[in-house]
Amino acid sequence: MQNDKPLKLAIAGLGTVGIGVVNVIQSYGEILSARGGRGLEIIAVCARDKTKNRDCDLSQYDWYDDAVIMAKNSDADIFIELVGGSEGIAKNSVETALNSGKHVVTANKALIAHHGFKLAQLAEKNNVCLTYEAAVAGGIPVIKTIREGLSANKISSLHGILNGTCNYIMTVMRETGRKFDDVLDEAQQLGYAEADPSFDIDGIDAAHKLAILASLAFGTKIDFDNVYIEGIRHITPVDIDFAAELGYKIKLLGMAENTDDGVFQHVHPVMVPINSPIAAVEGVYNAVVTEGDFIGTTVMEGKGAGRGPTASAVIADIIDIAANRQPATFGVPTDQLINKPTLPMEKCTGLYYLRLMVVDKPGVMADITAALRDENVSLEAIIQRRRNPGAPVAVVLTTHETGEAEFCNAMNRIEKLEAISETPRLIRIARFND
Amino acid sequence: MQNDKPLKLAIAGLGTVGIGVVNVIQSYGEILSARGGRGLEIIAVCARDKTKNRDCDLSQYDWYDDAVIMAKNSDADIFIELVGGSEGIAKNSVETALNSGKHVVTANKALIAHHGFKLAQLAEKNNVCLTYEAAVAGGIPVIKTIREGLSANKISSLHGILNGTCNYIMTVMRETGRKFDDVLDEAQQLGYAEADPSFDIDGIDAAHKLAILASLAFGTKIDFDNVYIEGIRHITPVDIDFAAELGYKIKLLGMAENTDDGVFQHVHPVMVPINSPIAAVEGVYNAVVTEGDFIGTTVMEGKGAGRGPTASAVIADIIDIAANRQPATFGVPTDQLINKPTLPMEKCTGLYYLRLMVVDKPGVMADITAALRDENVSLEAIIQRRRNPGAPVAVVLTTHETGEAEFCNAMNRIEKLEAISETPRLIRIARFND
Repeated sequence: MQNDKPLKLAIAGLGTVGIGVVNVIQSYGEILSARGGRGLEIIAVCARDKTKNRDCDLSQYDWYDDAVIMAKNSDADIFIELVGGSEGIAKNSVETALNSGKHVVTANKALIAHHGFKLAQLAEKNNVCLTYEAAVAGGIPVIKTIREGLSANKISSLHGILNGTCNYIMTVMRETGRKFDDVLDEAQQLGYAEADPSFDIDGIDAAHKLAILASLAFGTKIDFDNVYIEGIRHITPVDIDFAAELGYKIKLLGMAENTDDGVFQHVHPVMVPINSPIAAVEGVYNAVVTEGDFIGTTVMEGKGAGRGPTASAVIADIIDIAANRQPATFGVPTDQLINKPTLPMEKCTGLYYLRLMVVDKPGVMADITAALRDENVSLEAIIQRRRNPGAPVAVVLTTHETGEAEFCNAMNRIEKLEAISETPRLIRIARFND
Repeated sequence: MQNDKPLKLAIAGLGTVGIGVVNVIQSYGEILSARGGRGLEIIAVCARDKTKNRDCDLSQYDWYDDAVIMAKNSDADIFIELVGGSEGIAKNSVETALNSGKHVVTANKALIAHHGFKLAQLAEKNNVCLTYEAAVAGGIPVIKTIREGLSANKISSLHGILNGTCNYIMTVMRETGRKFDDVLDEAQQLGYAEADPSFDIDGIDAAHKLAILASLAFGTKIDFDNVYIEGIRHITPVDIDFAAELGYKIKLLGMAENTDDGVFQHVHPVMVPINSPIAAVEGVYNAVVTEGDFIGTTVMEGKGAGRGPTASAVIADIIDIAANRQPATFGVPTDQLINKPTLPMEKCTGLYYLRLMVVDKPGVMADITAALRDENVSLEAIIQRRRNPGAPVAVVLTTHETGEAEFCNAMNRIEKLEAISETPRLIRIARFND
């Protein structure tokens, strides 16, 4: 199975991950060759600014300023796209590379989430691979595991902590009692959050990853546009404290479920039981839990991002191609991906937590419980911790299993009550089987 | 990447896993073909007793009574060995299959642990695959993950709960306070333990799996014979209670570490911090934790065994071969596996728990602590919970980091003290980084 000719690589994007990939290949050449059955040879690199100091000797590689030109003209077997972004250079260069018969390895979740299906068709047409292990949870080989390790199974559902920035912020908030804005500031200073953090904290990054995992796991055509997305900006210390009191931690989860009628795909904060495996995943760690019909529950945990884990995932894809392990982009040929609709959030059922700020006067509780009754929402508990006549106090209610639509109707009725002093805060509750 | 000819399978062994594999292929033919890029076709099966009722239609397959003859004569592309045992039929039939140019997929950890290296050479010589995902933790694709998912990394160490029977027994013992023999009896009645349970409870099964993981992870020639093995027969409710008091749970772990001088490979009961991820893995679940230099800590958890998970793992191997993903048996060509010695247990260092039954009289504690001092063992704590003058009471001591050899010398000195009324009970303590 040995191949005497080295596999030629062209790397577009020389940021932290790109340089990480170069470093690993430069230092571990021999061991990677043994594992891939042939040598790996970087022949070309590309970035906007050649003069920048990158603490890495790039002098023996052809330099390109333009990734699209490198994708077209270089003699590489694999084009490695580490530029980022769903459009522009990233998309153009990947399309060009596929069309010129090069395999593509990418860490770009936005690109795969938005254009994965068309790019998979393009890869197929050109008889090359498009792989993206680094796009989801760099420290967990979750793409390979779902695509290959669980290939005997129909996967019915999956859920996971898919964004390390959010998990870090919420871990620190819970441990210190500090507010969101304050912890976000600190995370930005520490480099755990971007200057413009909205992709992370508004749940978009997690949604990109969830759409990818759902397509792979369910064999469905990727559908990012219809993922329900809610971020963590509105999480407050008050809700974190109430969660703890009720036996939960709040996590930003991506959750997907395959049903006969369609696919559920949601990203939103969830209260998870304090003893569940997913609750133990803290800080910058990610985790993915899958349910397969034969294999049962599989849990994987590892670092979400960073130079080492992401470079490791990129190189694992490269070694697979070197060793002739060349998978279909979404596990099966594109014409066999199922075109199943993403179901709207209103079709969901679940358990709910609602926190109200209520002006404490006689009859308020009766009005709230009447609104729930009128929408057929079954109350599990209602808690008002302290009295403060005439001023707003926090009232928390939790429900039994109920429909999202019914619950939202009840919430809208409650919001209109005169005694409610601010927007009610809904957080969904999850109780996993294991 | 499609292949019009179906991949032909011959299955040796029609027990719970063999029939599980037949069932999955019979019911999921279409989806498995999509994932493997070609059809799967069972052409032959083999077991000792053709007349046995197996609740499964086998009539369309060629029947063999002799696995070696099926391995030689059938027209299969893959020979699936589910007979079990490290010698005899299993070994002979696998050798015959490889020599006749068939790929081999097996769930047989004993076979791989004892003969994996020679069989890998045979596979290489015949240019076919020998794969064994089902041999270790059926519900966790850990072989694939280490071999391919972590292929960019040097793995420095790994540890795991590798035997579901032991984990089940110790979980029930801790939860109920019942004794080992009692819980083992029940586990046998429930089918969680074999009639002859020694392979499981004496740690041999876990050691087979550990030797396989260590070879794959470290790129070393497999060395089962030198794994240090201690089982769980001697674990008592007293030690489980003391562990809880000290903040630990007792787990049977397989642990391997790659050092410059050689490889450590141990299977023995370990006290693990109650908040560590591995402590949360209960019942029949398995878990494997790896430390890679780039990827960091990766944790995988799933069911250890059973029809569904094991059949799932066997079929994942089959689909890989169908899709032309055909790995080297231990991740690299056999001539590149490193011949590194397994280091003896005495070279280890660690933390220790020792429980003594001591006749409570003046001067005993002084004698015990003197023995530790004389062997340069640094005491962390010594606990005697109640006094019972003239009769034996439990005394527990824990150490700081110390050498295994020094600790055992001290233990031998202590055992000879007149006041010690039964064999001291040593349990090693692990504190993992994460």
